Order: sequence, then C-alpha cells, then structure tokens
Amino acid sequence: MEKLTAKVENLPEKYKNRGGRWLTDSYVCDEVDPNCHPLGPNNKLFFAPGIVTGTRAPSSGRISVGAKSPLTGGIKEANAGTPFAEQLALLGYSAIVVEGVPKEKGKYWQLEVDKKGFKLNEAKTGIGEELSKAYGELFKKHGKHVGIASIGVAGEQQLAASGICFNDIDGRASRYAGRGGLGAVMGSKGLKYIIVDDKGAKEVEIKDKSLFNEGKKKLAKAITTHDVTKKGGTLNAYGTAALINVMNEAGGLPTRNFREGRFEGAEKVSGETIKKVCEERGGVGAMGHPCHASCLIQCSNVYPYEDGTEHVSCIEYESAWAFGPNCGIDNLDHIAELIRLTNEYGLDTIEMGGTIAVAMDGGLAEFGDGEKAIEMMKEIHKGTPLGKILASGAVTTGKTLGVTRVPACKGQNLPAYEPRAVKGIGYVYATSTMGADHTSGYTIAPEILGVGGSADPLDTDKSAMARGFMDTTAFLDSTGYCLFIAFPILDIQEGFEGMVETVNGVLGTSWTGDDVARIGKEITEMERAFNKAAGFTKADDRIPEFMKLEKLPPLNEVWNVPDSDLDKVFK
Amino acid sequence: MEKLTAKVENLPEKYKNRGGRWLTDSYVCDEVDPNCHPLGPNNKLFFAPGIVTGTRAPSSGRISVGAKSPLTGGIKEANAGTPFAEQLALLGYSAIVVEGVPKEKGKYWQLEVDKKGFKLNEAKTGIGEELSKAYGELFKKHGKHVGIASIGVAGEQQLAASGICFNDIDGRASRYAGRGGLGAVMGSKGLKYIIVDDKGAKEVEIKDKSLFNEGKKKLAKAITTHDVTKKGGTLNAYGTAALINVMNEAGGLPTRNFREGRFEGAEKVSGETIKKVCEERGGVGAMGHPCHASCLIQCSNVYPYEDGTEHVSCIEYESAWAFGPNCGIDNLDHIAELIRLTNEYGLDTIEMGGTIAVAMDGGLAEFGDGEKAIEMMKEIHKGTPLGKILASGAVTTGKTLGVTRVPACKGQNLPAYEPRAVKGIGYVYATSTMGADHTSGYTIAPEILGVGGSADPLDTDKSAMARGFMDTTAFLDSTGYCLFIAFPILDIQEGFEGMVETVNGVLGTSWTGDDVARIGKEITEMERAFNKAAGFTKADDRIPEFMKLEKLPPLNEVWNVPDSDLDKVFK
Repeated sequence: MEKLTAKVENLPEKYKNRGGRWLTDSYVCDEVDPNCHPLGPNNKLFFAPGIVTGTRAPSSGRISVGAKSPLTGGIKEANAGTPFAEQLALLGYSAIVVEGVPKEKGKYWQLEVDKKGFKLNEAKTGIGEELSKAYGELFKKHGKHVGIASIGVAGEQQLAASGICFNDIDGRASRYAGRGGLGAVMGSKGLKYIIVDDKGAKEVEIKDKSLFNEGKKKLAKAITTHDVTKKGGTLNAYGTAALINVMNEAGGLPTRNFREGRFEGAEKVSGETIKKVCEERGGVGAMGHPCHASCLIQCSNVYPYEDGTEHVSCIEYESAWAFGPNCGIDNLDHIAELIRLTNEYGLDTIEMGGTIAVAMDGGLAEFGDGEKAIEMMKEIHKGTPLGKILASGAVTTGKTLGVTRVPACKGQNLPAYEPRAVKGIGYVYATSTMGADHTSGYTIAPEILGVGGSADPLDTDKSAMARGFMDTTAFLDSTGYCLFIAFPILDIQEGFEGMVETVNGVLGTSWTGDDVARIGKEITEMERAFNKAAGFTKADDRIPEFMKLEKLPPLNEVWNVPDSDLDKVFK
Repeated sequence: MEKLTAKVENLPEKYKNRGGRWLTDSYVCDEVDPNCHPLGPNNKLFFAPGIVTGTRAPSSGRISVGAKSPLTGGIKEANAGTPFAEQLALLGYSAIVVEGVPKEKGKYWQLEVDKKGFKLNEAKTGIGEELSKAYGELFKKHGKHVGIASIGVAGEQQLAASGICFNDIDGRASRYAGRGGLGAVMGSKGLKYIIVDDKGAKEVEIKDKSLFNEGKKKLAKAITTHDVTKKGGTLNAYGTAALINVMNEAGGLPTRNFREGRFEGAEKVSGETIKKVCEERGGVGAMGHPCHASCLIQCSNVYPYEDGTEHVSCIEYESAWAFGPNCGIDNLDHIAELIRLTNEYGLDTIEMGGTIAVAMDGGLAEFGDGEKAIEMMKEIHKGTPLGKILASGAVTTGKTLGVTRVPACKGQNLPAYEPRAVKGIGYVYATSTMGADHTSGYTIAPEILGVGGSADPLDTDKSAMARGFMDTTAFLDSTGYCLFIAFPILDIQEGFEGMVETVNGVLGTSWTGDDVARIGKEITEMERAFNKAAGFTKADDRIPEFMKLEKLPPLNEVWNVPDSDLDKVFK
C-alpha cells in the first residue's frame, strides 16, 4: 500500500499444504514483527480460503483473516462464511497479502481480483457511509456475482472493535471476520474494499477425487443426520440463538454486563421467539438461511420488520445475547436494529454488545434501554468522541468511563458463556491465543450440549479438554469448514473420517486423526510463540479479577479455577 | 475504605529503616497482587515521607506515593516536594496506607491526620470543582498551617492521567505526584483529601545528631556552591525551564508530538523569557520560589498575568515543554493557562501535554493553536466523552483517534528529552520500571549538562550508565531529598558524603556509598519483580516503533540502539 501496487506471486513452497488459519497464521508469524504497532507500516493483513474451500465440500466456504490485533496486541485470526471465500479459492489464489500503509491519508483504495490478477484502484464508493448502500453500488458496478470484503466507518477510523465484512449469499454486507479489530488494520492500510470476480475461474484442484468424494459423502451424512445440524435440526430450525434458552437454563447466560447468569427476558429474545416472529410477520422473515452455497446446515436467518420487510440478517446467538441479555434488553426489534447498525458500521457484534453493557455500567444508559443503546451506537457513524470510545471496544470504554467490571481477556470482550458457570470455556477464554473467544475451543459442546461426550460444567479440572478443543479447532479453521461441523464429527466417527478424507483428497496427503491433533497443536503453539514474543506472559492467561470476587447468581459461583491449573493448558 | 475506618498501627519491623520510595515500594510489593485491577478493591495506595524528611536537611521535603498504576499496569512511585511531607514526618507517621474501595459510589471521604491519630470523615468540599477553590475552603476550615493531599475532577472520574496534588509552601494546589495515574487510584478509593495537621508535633528523631549536622553542613555547602543549584545559579535564576534553550540547542527538544528535535519558538517559552516576563509584569511575578521550607535550591516560580496578578505556579521545564514545543505552542500565556487547568483538574502536565499533542496529530486542532488546546482541556472538567478520552492519557487518546505516532513506554508518555537525540535517556525511558520517566535516571546530567562527567549523547552504549542512574535515584527517592541535589553530589564528593551522613545520622546506620548503590539496586529489582509478575517482559522495554522508522530533524537520528543492548540494563 505504500507504493500502491498489486501483483500476483507464487505461494512459497513451505506453505503448499496450508490454508485458512494455518496459512494466515504462518504468514503473520513469518512476516510480522510481534512488537510492531498493529496499525503501523510493519503490520500485514492476510486473507486465505481454507484447504477444501471452493470444492463444494459441505459447509466449507470460510475465509480466514490474520494480522497482529489492535485489540489484543497479539496474533489474530478471524474467519467468516461467505461466497467470497469460494470465489477466491476458485480463482486459484491461496491468499491475499496486504503490506505497508499509504503515504497519503484520507484516501481509500480497492483491490480488484480476477482471473487475470490483482489491480489496485482508488475507492470512491461508500466512504463514510453505511455498508449496505456501498455494497449495493458496488454490485451494480461490478456485477451481482462478485464477492466483496470491506471495512465500514469504524474501520476507516481505525478503531479496535472494527471487523472485516464479507457479502452473504444474497449480497448482504453481513458476514464478519469480526473479532480483534482486523477492520482497523485494513483501515490503517487505506484499503476499503477487495472485490473478487471469479468469472472464468477453473475448478479447485483435487489431487484424489475419489477419496475426496468418499469423504464428502461421509461428512455430508454425518451433518444431515446429527440432531444439531440436520435439516430441521436445532441450528436449522432455530438458528444459533437456540442457545439463549439453553444457556439461560444452565445459569450461564451473561446478563447485565456479566452481573447475573440468568435473564428474566431470555424467552423473548430466544431462537424460538425469533422463529415465531419470522413466521408471524411473514414477508422476508426466514429461518434456515445459508451464508454460502455449499452449506448443508443453514443456520442463518433473515429477520423482518413488523411489516414483513427485511430488517437484518442474521440474528446470531452471540449477537442476540450481546445486545440482549448482556445489555438487559428484551426487545427483539431493538436488538435487530443494534445488530443492523453494527453491520452497517463495520463492527464486531460481540465486542459492541459488551461495550454497550460496560457503558451502561458506567452510567451512560440504564440496563434494558434499547433506544438509548441505539442512540449510542449512532455516535460511531457521526465520529463523535463518544462514538470513538465505544468503537474502541469494552476495555477502552471501561478505562474512559471509570468502569472496572470489564469482562475481557487479552483486551477482548467475553462472548456469551459465563465462565463462572461453565469452567471449561473459562479456560479457553483465559488461555486462547486470540483473547476471550468461544470459537477458539467450544467446550460448550460437552459441558452444556452433551455433544462429544458430557462433562460437568462446574468441574474445574478442564485444562486438557480446553487444549484439545483449541488444537482441533485450529485444524478445522484451516480446512475452510464451518466450526459447526464439529457437532456431527465429534459424535459420529465416520463424519470425522470423512472430513479428514476430503482434506487428503484435495492435498494428496495421507493425514490421519493423529495428524489433525499434531497440526492443530503446531498451529496453536505457533500462535502462542508469536504472542510470547509480543510480550504476553501467563499473567495474560487470566479471567477478569471481578469474577473471582463476585458470585454469579443464580448458581452463586465464582471463578474458582486456580491459576496454576490455567497454566497447565500450554505446559 | 470498604469499612470506612482509619487507625494507627506500628510500622512493621522489617520496614524500620525505609522511607520514601523504598517504603511505598515495599508495601506495594508485599501487599498488592500484581495482577489486580489498579482501580479495584485489591490495589492499595501508600504515602511515605523520606528518611530525612522533616529534619530540615536541605531540600528534603519530598513525599512518595506508591500503588499499582492504572496507566502502566506496573508498579508506580511518584513523589512531590511539599510541606505535607514534612508535616507527616514531624507527626512521626512513617506512612499512610489506603486499602479497599467504598461500597457506596458517588460519595467522597477525607482522612484527617494529627498527633492524636487518623480520622475518616465525609468530604463535602470542592467535589467537582477546581482545586484552588477547594484548597481555599479547606484552609479556611482547618487552618492555614495544615498540609493537603487531594485529587481533582480527573481523579474523581478515575482517569489514568490523574495525579495526586499537594499544597506548596503558600498553600497553592500545585505540587504533584503526577505521573502514572495515582490520582485515579485515590479516586477509586473514594478518597478526596488527606489533611495533615502537625500542631503539637515533636521533632523527627535523629539517632546521631552530630553526624547528621556534619552531613547537613557538607550537603548544604555542595548545593550552595554548585553552579546549577546555588543561589543565583541556573535553577534558582531561571527555573527548570532553563533547559528549553539547552535542549533546543542540542536538537533534543521534542517538538510537535516528537516530529522534530528543535522548535522555532523555543526562545519565547524558555526559562530566560519566563524570568523576563516575571520581572516586566511585576506584581506577584517571581523566580527562585521554594516548594517547601527546607529548600536551598528554590527553582520554582510564580507566573503573572499581564496585570501582575498571579496566573500559575509553577511553569516547570517539563510543563512548559509539554504544552509548548510539544504542541507547537509558543505563547507563554497559553502555556501558563494550560498548566493552570491541569493543576486545577488534578492531572499530570507531562501526560496531558503529550496527550494534547497526540490529539493535534489526530486532527482535533492545529499544532500551535493554544486557544483550541485550552478549550480541549476544559472538556475534562465538563466530563464529556472527549474530556474522558484526553484525561485517560496519550495512549488511549491515540487509540480512540486512530493515531499511531504515540510516544509512550509502558503506557506512559515520554517526557521532554528526545531519545533519538540523547540515547542514554532512551535507555531509561525503555527500561525503567515506571514507564517513560526522566526522573527514574537523569542521564541528561552527563549527556547534555556535563554534570557527573560528560558523555556523548549520540553514543549508543549506555546500558551501564542508565542502570547506575536508576539505582542511585531509587536510593535518593527514598531519602526524601529532592532529585536536584544530584547535580551537586554528582560533582562534589563531599556533598555526596554529606547526603549519606545525614541518612546515617537519622537512622543510626553506617551506610557507605556502596550501600547507596546496593540499596538502590535492591529497590529497582524489587520493582522489576513486581512488573514481571504483572506480566511485563522485555517486549515492554522498548522505544516506540515510529522512532526507529522516522528520522528526527535536525540531527536526522533514528532510535538506533539494538534491543539486545536495552536488555543488558537489567541483565
């Protein structure tokens, strides 16, 4: 970006079997100084589709984005499900590498990617505007079939809660590599859009087609028969927000900035209610919506206004929780509007819900006041000082508002599972290389859902479980598969085998289950080495102090895992 | 503060020969969890006069304040010269320990200290008001002779650039333990004032009076004969701002947020000009003002408005620089007003000048626009979001405004010496346990002033020099002596001996120069161990990245000290 040039190079030989998180991580670890300023010229930003992305393996359309994070100060990988991932893979590009910062400030650029190569042009569309408007104009100009990655007004301001937005299957600006402020990194590089046009692309190369097809069949069977992921199963029927009632029942639904574990208004914002509202209001209201074409699970939704016209897609569990129970808000329409604004401004819903909750704790609004929360969010678009505080995330908001109850690990706000009520996920929040992140190691599966075995959520001895989940997830994030295939492949051995076979089919490798664990471990340890060089120590592998001091109703649990047990995770 | 009680206890035996920084450090290291939230219930705040404070040894009226810092996240010791220190010592109290946080928020308390003991009452004076007004009312109520420690509106808001304010010899709210956000810690404890009344106090116990008197005489002679500290010498005649022209000449006067090392308007804001204005305007205008009664150096000043009435005391070098050259401002009256507001609101002038400069870099004002800077400062009193950003310091301001050129080490803004132009002070900024802090190890003495020997400022091999200065300073900060006695005792051996003899006289010890080095080393290593436990690594011992990338005019130097050399300081 310093010289405003773009070109295609061969993928380094050493990266040849890597994709997704493994590849973006490798680049970050090899090419980024761990002590550089995350928004300075020495950080780099990497995009990579997964190993099987573009092959039409089921639910495999994930794009991985990596850089040093302005939110955590450590390595960051965030990924999203989007046609953009498939298009990039189909064009045969293993990764996009963004280097340097432009000399001229206040101007933005767009990278155009097609089968002929990479082109950098000035971006003149949608600067300072809501993303849906910008996407509409870009699709008009570049064709409905292109894929778009972008930043919104928050990323333009280089604020640390900014995500990177990708189009969904219908062209909405709604699929996010949300966490860790990667949008601010893209903003620091003056890059507003990446537009991928896969016209004339070939198929993704598959080294062993019969093995691949065999594996694909097994995996598809597992997905379509498991209760969580099958057609009409939990995720398809109710979306991820099916978890609202489940976590509420378990006393682990963080409520009013992690003051309580159960929310009296949970039912009103649950997956069941979302489904009901979609059906009652009709119009565009729909459950079971896919984010990209190859998806068999289809857990997304399109939520309507009262008159049936489209309000927002999608109300995920994390987003519904972040702006709902965590802010004490039980009005689904307010929550939908908060999610819409977050998407329009290019932000992470988890961080922003957590931030609004901290701001409420700091007296800027009463818990439950959805209208005031919407007003606060709009400050971000206006670029006011309050907007800049909020879009810098929960930790900065706590600092500036004098709030000490800030639920964050390594600078990143905690997601929708209370560590005091579910100890395993607390291990993951504390020790993950990514900062507090449920997708780093979803121990909720055995601890709450009875998937992949069953574990007492209050049992404190979970270091091995946390590490196991984190390593396996690191591999899955490299394949391009959606994390939700974990549900069937944890329970159905054939599904797991199928997943491995599709990877071997594409690469021509003969990896086994042991290799999955080995490679996953290699990835998390590589990330951890980066963080260590960036200055992280075990003092960063801790749950926020207030959780050790305050009991969480109704279970009345504190965070009671000894620090020494946390330190076992990476020992 | 949780139970709102106060009582007097015996000093633990193990602390019996400790004072000042040594004592507050010992408390912090023994009693504060390095991983606690700095503004939570587990941080503690300590006040301690130095070993010889209250004895009338020359320039010995320093009070040390210690806690875990909300600005750096590490240990923090800041000290100030004030009659408060002498009064506390005369009452025979070695320290004040503030623990816990009150259950009730929004109420403030005052600790009243006299020969009968400690009393805690609700503070009803001056909440939300400028400090000079509050001090006026308190002196009216408690008598002109009391000493006052306090926080201003910034500390009430628990913002990380807040300092702790003490009265000067005339009762002004103007002497600051400014750095590292200790005012926010005091604010988190709901403690608005400490009022010390030494009526009926005995003398400070001196174990060996003849040795003490002998030492005192030698030290006084050194102070009153050395060119820097004697009556009519540099500091007395021109104040600390005598350094403006010196550092400008050396190309090491940080200008416009550390973009240049020489300021075209330096002469207009120099000590020489301050002296001239004081003389020309007459009225209260005065140089050679002491901060406490025992001071022989008297480097302070009282700066007048055009009509000769009092504007502010004192315009220090650091403060003049922070709001002057570093903000591109060459109007002394604007600078005086910025310092006045900083004092009135209970903030650190260095951090605030650095913050305004970063805000200017972020486009909130043009460099040089003093009126706009004054407007911005006033936002802090109003408690607006912008005010909260600014009073959180330079790093938070950079984060929220998208500015990456933030000159800070361990979260604390760099003082008035450019590390690219003076390498030794860069070692100190990078490796000091306190974050960027010139008073941790004033290598400027040999590097620029030819005091204590002479060293080439551009020579990069300064690890031993930096460590030596840091250790000796840690001892000096424990004695209660003003750091400025370093000038004479570095050059005059008898003065150094006298300093040690006064300490031995008070304590009945027989420490030598070797003990000074040994104890100083013990102190800095104790601090470093705290920081290590708090999660600091060598990645925190670094100069900001932009200084390695950008040449500093006019010397056109970058920060070129290898990281491995920085790591030698504490090896």
